[in-house]
Amino acid sequence: MNETIKLLMAHRSIRKYADKPVSREIVEQIIAAAQMASTSSNVQGYSVVAVTDPERKQKLSQLSGSQAYIVECPVFLVWCADLSRLKNAAQHHLPDTKSYEGATENFIVATVDTALAAQNAAIAAESLGLGIVYIGGIRNHIQQVTELLHLPELAFPVFGMCLGYPDQSPGQRPRLPQPAVLHWEEYNSAESEKQVAIYDEITSKYLRDRTGGAKDTPWSRLMAEKLANPSRLHMKEFLQQRGFKLD
Amino acid sequence: MNETIKLLMAHRSIRKYADKPVSREIVEQIIAAAQMASTSSNVQGYSVVAVTDPERKQKLSQLSGSQAYIVECPVFLVWCADLSRLKNAAQHHLPDTKSYEGATENFIVATVDTALAAQNAAIAAESLGLGIVYIGGIRNHIQQVTELLHLPELAFPVFGMCLGYPDQSPGQRPRLPQPAVLHWEEYNSAESEKQVAIYDEITSKYLRDRTGGAKDTPWSRLMAEKLANPSRLHMKEFLQQRGFKLD
Repeated sequence: MNETIKLLMAHRSIRKYADKPVSREIVEQIIAAAQMASTSSNVQGYSVVAVTDPERKQKLSQLSGSQAYIVECPVFLVWCADLSRLKNAAQHHLPDTKSYEGATENFIVATVDTALAAQNAAIAAESLGLGIVYIGGIRNHIQQVTELLHLPELAFPVFGMCLGYPDQSPGQRPRLPQPAVLHWEEYNSAESEKQVAIYDEITSKYLRDRTGGAKDTPWSRLMAEKLANPSRLHMKEFLQQRGFKLD
Repeated sequence: MNETIKLLMAHRSIRKYADKPVSREIVEQIIAAAQMASTSSNVQGYSVVAVTDPERKQKLSQLSGSQAYIVECPVFLVWCADLSRLKNAAQHHLPDTKSYEGATENFIVATVDTALAAQNAAIAAESLGLGIVYIGGIRNHIQQVTELLHLPELAFPVFGMCLGYPDQSPGQRPRLPQPAVLHWEEYNSAESEKQVAIYDEITSKYLRDRTGGAKDTPWSRLMAEKLANPSRLHMKEFLQQRGFKLD
């Protein structure tokens, strides 16, 4: 196993950070690595807002479910899907031509571009001894976050990312058995279901061991509850108001 | 610069592959690294179909804009956002409870999970000396691809990825200047526009140099044309038919 694969295999989210700053140069190196990720037709449909101001981090934390690590991490990155550059270009070069920034296709392009770049950043950060955790909670009050960061139309926060030197060494949660995720030649639903049953036993035991027997909910039950949770139902309306019509 | 960051900075898409197989063990190692990427609330909302059968690759190539490298690469990975496991879990554990698989929020969760895992795979592959290229063209005829791969409801192909040993060594296209992409504390639209003007000069010169003066279209003009192109307008209807209601 080479060094890079070792690094990828060792990933775990860090939610407790040492009181040690992350220099601007380090952030710029991490974002440079992010920018080298693949991008659909060179669209580069994302922007990053790096937040270090304690008051602003405090507000972002409150808007994201009051997660203390957003305040404690020295740098909080807000990863935004961003088609505003493309829209400006269209208005400048082809002012009388219909443009399709609202198409679901372009929403996918920008969201995927954002995630590919962010994952490169995560790996670059970890290779430098930093820890990270993705923050989906940034979408809890996405309108307020958008205002706080002065995002233009056609840019929205997809997720946040805490960045800092780890002050904890958590274990790794087991992932789905590979045959649940990797299929050969065509999708195999029967195999997937069999593997989920195996994973339910693994996750049940994992929770039991970690909680001294207090919890043992299997993964599929947690996922059923997740899907029953009417989470962030404002997303569609918010996106449409920001120019992502999803049509 | 450490080895991993060097690797990230050296990325370029590979579109010509040596006639050398990629073993099943290598693919499994790459997918194992993919599975260690962060995932929203442990949802793991993705599946991968690895295609090696020449006839099936031929069909996928035809459905994706007839890109020869899809046929020539030894392994073609189709990365699918996949909430079917969650839906099965909901039907099993909470059959009488409303579930929100159709929410735009859950569409984002699954699409982002897919991209994070895929980018880990891309990096793992490159660390092993392989080359990759993402294939958005898999969405050109997404319904037929979905049928060909027997994908269940609530799974859709987000992008493909060619995998193989490189038989070319292309240069790197310049990316946007970092201040166009990285903002501090809040979004700076004026700076972003200034940087796009600089990038237009860079990309114009890059094209001129690469084509002996035949082409010099600046980036922003290409992006204006991209947005004026009614590309893959079937996506919304397709997704809704597959259970992603986007509500």
